[in-house]
Amino acid sequence: MHAHTNCIGVLGGMGPAATVDFMSKLVSLTPASCDQDHLPVVVANLPRIPDRSAAILGCGPTPLPVLRQSIQLLNEAGAGVIAIPCNSSHHWYAELCEVSLAPIIHIAQACVRRLPAGTRETLVLATRGTLASGFYQRELDGRGFRWSVPDSTTEQPLVDDCIRQIKCGDRAAGSASLQALFDRARERGIDTAILGCTELPLAATGTESAGLLLIDSTLELARSVVDFGLRCGWNHG
Amino acid sequence: MHAHTNCIGVLGGMGPAATVDFMSKLVSLTPASCDQDHLPVVVANLPRIPDRSAAILGCGPTPLPVLRQSIQLLNEAGAGVIAIPCNSSHHWYAELCEVSLAPIIHIAQACVRRLPAGTRETLVLATRGTLASGFYQRELDGRGFRWSVPDSTTEQPLVDDCIRQIKCGDRAAGSASLQALFDRARERGIDTAILGCTELPLAATGTESAGLLLIDSTLELARSVVDFGLRCGWNHG
Repeated sequence: MHAHTNCIGVLGGMGPAATVDFMSKLVSLTPASCDQDHLPVVVANLPRIPDRSAAILGCGPTPLPVLRQSIQLLNEAGAGVIAIPCNSSHHWYAELCEVSLAPIIHIAQACVRRLPAGTRETLVLATRGTLASGFYQRELDGRGFRWSVPDSTTEQPLVDDCIRQIKCGDRAAGSASLQALFDRARERGIDTAILGCTELPLAATGTESAGLLLIDSTLELARSVVDFGLRCGWNHG
Repeated sequence: MHAHTNCIGVLGGMGPAATVDFMSKLVSLTPASCDQDHLPVVVANLPRIPDRSAAILGCGPTPLPVLRQSIQLLNEAGAGVIAIPCNSSHHWYAELCEVSLAPIIHIAQACVRRLPAGTRETLVLATRGTLASGFYQRELDGRGFRWSVPDSTTEQPLVDDCIRQIKCGDRAAGSASLQALFDRARERGIDTAILGCTELPLAATGTESAGLLLIDSTLELARSVVDFGLRCGWNHG
């Protein structure tokens, strides 16, 4: 039974704070003067999905069965498009599209589309799983952008720390870790950083990033899904 | 098909910003050091539900059929308890409980439970519909608390303004309206105010309320539902 056959479906909970940030951005991006102008959204916030990054790296159980179930739940709830505010999950993008009637917006495509044409070098900040999966690198290569990833022993530990700190609610520590990464990136002449993990934008609000264009994957995914919903007229019943 | 047979169900979208605030409070109130410690939540954020307050006052269509459908959707998605972060909707509480297998936590009961025993006088700030419905007044009477409501011509317009301002995204204006109400309340010797509309806590963050105990209905509903979920062990799979 569908309350609405056309609504935005959100596969959330990875992590829960990132999903709240995504929902907040979705509401802010929607032009509305009253409740009824907003877009209908169904969110499945299922935090017990096994760790995505660990699974990609071969050191944890696969989250695919639970991700598939959640996609089916959103389809049954009437989703006409699906957003997954978790970058690492996009390792299983093809498998999830297979079980979904509704199109799933790819978070990395949403981000890379926003890169300005003259970008010098883009640093991809993401979990070790996302980087090993390689979908950001492929998307950037496909559009002819030069990219780099953090050094795995001196820089990636700061990304890992930042994500863990945000997931356990310590935003100040998360911001300090991210600030150290931004400072190193500028020293290396990088002009753009993709915050390719949805915990990172939560840490970025407490940083100073002058001279560095930040591409917020949560914001870009929200922008894409709001555009989709507005084009479909879902804000008009 | 249920991704989880035991999760928190949230009937949201009334308004969308208030639902985001509720989700944020729910995440903050959950003791967690990683994603998997959090409580599973399914949110139906359906903003096209007809205006609740107007319907109670007899000047708009009833939202009951859509509210019922949404409750059923949450039950089908596996909700083991349901929260509705919209006070006015509780006018139809009995009718919604009838169609729900999962218990629905009553927002006014969650608030009134938090009033300290020695409270002198509680001001109920809410929509005209909620006040006309009378469920807050009945709950306060039932527990022996003295209460008052805003004067309908000089004070309630400030409540109405505040709610409308928050719904259209103007937080500064909403805070100014609410500040004026707090100032009048203190002059009248009131010591407690129930923010009995989920838009009001969003306005309250920009106010000065010293000497006035604020009972935030969004926070109290979140607290009740998190307590329910933790008691059921839904954070442990």
